[in-house]
Amino acid sequence: MNNKSPVKNIAILTSGGDAPGMNAAIRSCTLAALHYGHNVFGFLHGFKGLINNDFIRLEEQHVRDIIHCGGTMLKSARCHEFHDEANQQIAANNLNKLKIDGLIVIGGDGSFFGMLALDKYYNGQLIAIPGTIDNDVDGTDHTIGFATAVNTAIDAIDKIRDTADAFERVFVIEVMGRHSGFLALNVGIASGAEQVITFENFKNPGVELQKIAEHIKLSKQKRGASSYLIVAAENLWPQGIEQLCIDLQNYANIKCTPCILGYIQRGGSPVPKDRIMATKMGVAAIDAVIANKSMIMIGEVSSKTVEVNLEQAVKHRKQVNGDLLMAQNSILDIAELAKINKL
Amino acid sequence: MNNKSPVKNIAILTSGGDAPGMNAAIRSCTLAALHYGHNVFGFLHGFKGLINNDFIRLEEQHVRDIIHCGGTMLKSARCHEFHDEANQQIAANNLNKLKIDGLIVIGGDGSFFGMLALDKYYNGQLIAIPGTIDNDVDGTDHTIGFATAVNTAIDAIDKIRDTADAFERVFVIEVMGRHSGFLALNVGIASGAEQVITFENFKNPGVELQKIAEHIKLSKQKRGASSYLIVAAENLWPQGIEQLCIDLQNYANIKCTPCILGYIQRGGSPVPKDRIMATKMGVAAIDAVIANKSMIMIGEVSSKTVEVNLEQAVKHRKQVNGDLLMAQNSILDIAELAKINKL
Amino acid sequence: MNNKSPVKNIAILTSGGDAPGMNAAIRSCTLAALHYGHNVFGFLHGFKGLINNDFIRLEEQHVRDIIHCGGTMLKSARCHEFHDEANQQIAANNLNKLKIDGLIVIGGDGSFFGMLALDKYYNGQLIAIPGTIDNDVDGTDHTIGFATAVNTAIDAIDKIRDTADAFERVFVIEVMGRHSGFLALNVGIASGAEQVITFENFKNPGVELQKIAEHIKLSKQKRGASSYLIVAAENLWPQGIEQLCIDLQNYANIKCTPCILGYIQRGGSPVPKDRIMATKMGVAAIDAVIANKSMIMIGEVSSKTVEVNLEQAVKHRKQVNGDLLMAQNSILDIAELAKINKL
Amino acid sequence: MNNKSPVKNIAILTSGGDAPGMNAAIRSCTLAALHYGHNVFGFLHGFKGLINNDFIRLEEQHVRDIIHCGGTMLKSARCHEFHDEANQQIAANNLNKLKIDGLIVIGGDGSFFGMLALDKYYNGQLIAIPGTIDNDVDGTDHTIGFATAVNTAIDAIDKIRDTADAFERVFVIEVMGRHSGFLALNVGIASGAEQVITFENFKNPGVELQKIAEHIKLSKQKRGASSYLIVAAENLWPQGIEQLCIDLQNYANIKCTPCILGYIQRGGSPVPKDRIMATKMGVAAIDAVIANKSMIMIGEVSSKTVEVNLEQAVKHRKQVNGDLLMAQNSILDIAELAKINKL
Repeated sequence: MNNKSPVKNIAILTSGGDAPGMNAAIRSCTLAALHYGHNVFGFLHGFKGLINNDFIRLEEQHVRDIIHCGGTMLKSARCHEFHDEANQQIAANNLNKLKIDGLIVIGGDGSFFGMLALDKYYNGQLIAIPGTIDNDVDGTDHTIGFATAVNTAIDAIDKIRDTADAFERVFVIEVMGRHSGFLALNVGIASGAEQVITFENFKNPGVELQKIAEHIKLSKQKRGASSYLIVAAENLWPQGIEQLCIDLQNYANIKCTPCILGYIQRGGSPVPKDRIMATKMGVAAIDAVIANKSMIMIGEVSSKTVEVNLEQAVKHRKQVNGDLLMAQNSILDIAELAKINKL
Repeated sequence: MNNKSPVKNIAILTSGGDAPGMNAAIRSCTLAALHYGHNVFGFLHGFKGLINNDFIRLEEQHVRDIIHCGGTMLKSARCHEFHDEANQQIAANNLNKLKIDGLIVIGGDGSFFGMLALDKYYNGQLIAIPGTIDNDVDGTDHTIGFATAVNTAIDAIDKIRDTADAFERVFVIEVMGRHSGFLALNVGIASGAEQVITFENFKNPGVELQKIAEHIKLSKQKRGASSYLIVAAENLWPQGIEQLCIDLQNYANIKCTPCILGYIQRGGSPVPKDRIMATKMGVAAIDAVIANKSMIMIGEVSSKTVEVNLEQAVKHRKQVNGDLLMAQNSILDIAELAKINKL
Repeated sequence: MNNKSPVKNIAILTSGGDAPGMNAAIRSCTLAALHYGHNVFGFLHGFKGLINNDFIRLEEQHVRDIIHCGGTMLKSARCHEFHDEANQQIAANNLNKLKIDGLIVIGGDGSFFGMLALDKYYNGQLIAIPGTIDNDVDGTDHTIGFATAVNTAIDAIDKIRDTADAFERVFVIEVMGRHSGFLALNVGIASGAEQVITFENFKNPGVELQKIAEHIKLSKQKRGASSYLIVAAENLWPQGIEQLCIDLQNYANIKCTPCILGYIQRGGSPVPKDRIMATKMGVAAIDAVIANKSMIMIGEVSSKTVEVNLEQAVKHRKQVNGDLLMAQNSILDIAELAKINKL
Repeated sequence: MNNKSPVKNIAILTSGGDAPGMNAAIRSCTLAALHYGHNVFGFLHGFKGLINNDFIRLEEQHVRDIIHCGGTMLKSARCHEFHDEANQQIAANNLNKLKIDGLIVIGGDGSFFGMLALDKYYNGQLIAIPGTIDNDVDGTDHTIGFATAVNTAIDAIDKIRDTADAFERVFVIEVMGRHSGFLALNVGIASGAEQVITFENFKNPGVELQKIAEHIKLSKQKRGASSYLIVAAENLWPQGIEQLCIDLQNYANIKCTPCILGYIQRGGSPVPKDRIMATKMGVAAIDAVIANKSMIMIGEVSSKTVEVNLEQAVKHRKQVNGDLLMAQNSILDIAELAKINKL
């Protein structure tokens, strides 16, 4: 790390859906930048703050006690105005006028597209930190917030299991993830759910309905009446999980209760994994600014921080590991139940 | 306590919605009964188990490790068949034939009505323990499960607050409680919600809509953009909280996000309050059986277990404490906002 | 409540050991006072702040987001200087000069003795709110912080149970409580500990050693090797629980592992019980100031706030409920083990 | 995966210190083996069970509900008898006589040395799964239990921070880790501790004492009185952290409170990371047995399960990532404080 670099003006913003650990990343960027003698600015409300030139100076006292806080102290927003090229220019001009040498954006791939647009007009360096509970960013093992969201979903499902057991009932639980199955699959495995419906193993409603119904029946035969939990990714079943419950009732006379976990999955104090990874990524982002790099994303691979070409990270879609799917199949279906999966 | 009583056959069942701490009560009834040399039977699936004569013997090893478990190891059910007098007789006959001296029912007031019916045909003693997350049972400061449900709801809302703060948004959060405002009011106060809509302070949708809209606007004026949380009791707003959000949008152009906490509120490891109260109530129920009492409910008043006439407990509806409502009003509305409450 | 009272200057301080929920009480005092149009001052570091005239003005924005925070934003301290009468006069003069009409002290009985001293020289009203994890204050069912401390201790013991089970080992766990057994007894019952050693049931080390050793042996005979947890109050066993473990080894060749829970019991986000009770007590304290009362303590009895004469609250020592001790005895010892308790 | 392999007898044991997630691994080994039609045996109390031929058959119902439980249902033990070659032969003979085709050992590197010894006499396959909260096993990014232990320690320290803040005090907190700094460094960073003392950055007591004392003083100058937390690895400071507190008092008149987190770090419900990784490792271990592999350890690298040569895993000592140490240094010390680290 270079201690002798000239003093730089470094800006930070958070964008898109909030994710637990964003504050830890803001804190670590700020402390590391101050440690090396640079100035730090925080833009508010994501890209909106760039357009409106809405920012604050960040000093140690602003970030001292935020490592354990969910949400983002810099606020966030989804900024449709930024799709407009005129606004991109305004944003870049604001940064240029303020002589911001480097801008660090903490967000998901929507935010990274915003960075590609900004790069056309902005003279400074752009560094991305992946922060989204969906984990759907290529080039990094994990995104900030994912571990906490999995944890929150499982806490909730551990509770639902109690009622499902007491009433020997079938529950369908919808988890977030936009168009990616990381949350559903990890949550399904870690909660010991009897069935996971996710993009990666979904064929079509007819096939799935048959598979689920047969699995529930065989499971009841084998285990006696007992609870049965289905974890389902959002945006997957046509017309949502309430409809899935109706479909199961109509198709096989199985009574199901739908449960949408919803917004609790986005907040909460970040688990250690998110705090530590965010801290390391923040320091690595400042190092990258000091080293005059631009258009890279900080990732974590095998517990080590790495630098990834931002355009490539945006271009590729991260796939769920095959061993997760395989584990799920091997665990769910003992002996004779295994045959159903071959439908 | 009388150590010299003849050996008795004591049965236990759990009925109605499951509530965290029911297992702690089962454990404590069982251990205390065994301690004094009596026999213990557990009927399964609530009153259904009485009709079907479906029971197990309970020994120490069955209950040793369940104090911290949510749900109920004896299973529960809502039993519509028990409204039928013929089934009430069958249930009583089963108990009489088994020579069950005393039956302990852990449940809410629906279950207690079942006990009144059973008493007409059953020769033994009937003891009630109040177990429901709704807290709507008279004669006891708290019911088993209420403290845990409040805790779960607040954990969830503390997380939603993070996203509400990050996006400076209004959220409406629906909590359980059937037709009683204990959960909503306690959860509202403990989560620091800006507004609580509950049976106890509800006039009519038109008045409420005006009050909420003005409060949100004044609050934004005074505090700048910031999050605003509304905690609402279920079964209160006509057509539910999604409609409330639409109504607020139409009435005052306020954008709200609805969040239904749902089934997570019924499960989970019981908090200490529920474990301790359930343990004490279980011991008191066994004492009452040994003392040849019947048709009483065990309650807790000012941290001491009490015995209450069951019919009276069923007849009266417990009211939310006035000081809770007053506290809520004093806390929510500083200075000029106070005037709105007078609408 | 009187809306027409003249504007008053109301001060708040927290004193003695910090307790979760103190912030909720500060928040509620502040918001309720502002709601009725009064001015609020916060003295820092307990009674030290009175001597040093060290205070801040409290406005809504200072307390908006603290209901869920452990510790105390007004800081606390144990203030030995306040035993000196000269310092009591200085403190009273500072309050008198500032024209503080009422001072609200949140703390335990040590702090309340300070109030008795202050009352000799201070012209204003004095209102106490009981805040201590020890629960050893008379005139109130619970003190602020107690419910959270029990919760924290049980979370910890639930974890220790895992290792005790895996290794089939005896653990002795020390919990706080100064010279009172509320914490030990409640924690012991709620954690399902096999033995609780507390002031209320302690005879002398020789008798206890024999009782515990016999109970462990009978328990192992009856249940096979399995874990055995002893919850012990601090300041009880001569030379502490490490010595108790050595004594058990020497007396009966039983290998024990000592575990001191320590400071984790004092912090943490307050559980709902503490948030709600603190909120209600804060509002009641402001009501009492407005009603020109003095030298009273706000308590909670049977879920309702009450006003108690402060001198009486200080004079009497609250006793642990008999039904807790009885429950513990009935639950711990099934059948033949019961005889040991008669030693 | 080969579905046509002959039916195999597969045994599992857990050994050494218990770690959260061991049960998830037992569950997953069992379910996957049954899924492919094999028989499963569980040996009790680690290697002791092999010597004493103490085992149970494992079926689905034994493992259905254990994924969320801390500890190990197969019990564990540290087995000094196994250092004796005669006992190693007895253990191997027991396995050979039972026709156990493959033994899966879940434990830390001590247990893996036991496997090397057993391999000399046992005819079957040996597969290791790394389970220890210390994370000190080479060939895998993480060991089962580490993520949960970090989580538990941080929950505890978040609470201690409250009291430290309220009293503006210095606390020294000892975390586990045997002779490795993974726990201390990760916990230090994630808790936002002001100082971490660990094997990787420790020079000698004299140097450290000077460094810490100066850092505390500069920190107080810069930030005003405020809390200061030191996270220290166990087995590091000569005579422990109580002595460190005495040394700081003597050297620089700084008052510190020692806190030993102790056994709570070993238990508790495993966090999702440990549940998921353990599940995947269990399935991979069964795959390895089916594929007739032996003397390998299942690891996880970059979220994918891998197979590692067991002897090599034992031979090398895993080092803490450099970027963690660097992050810690950059974050702790803003601007002028940075100079101290150069002492």
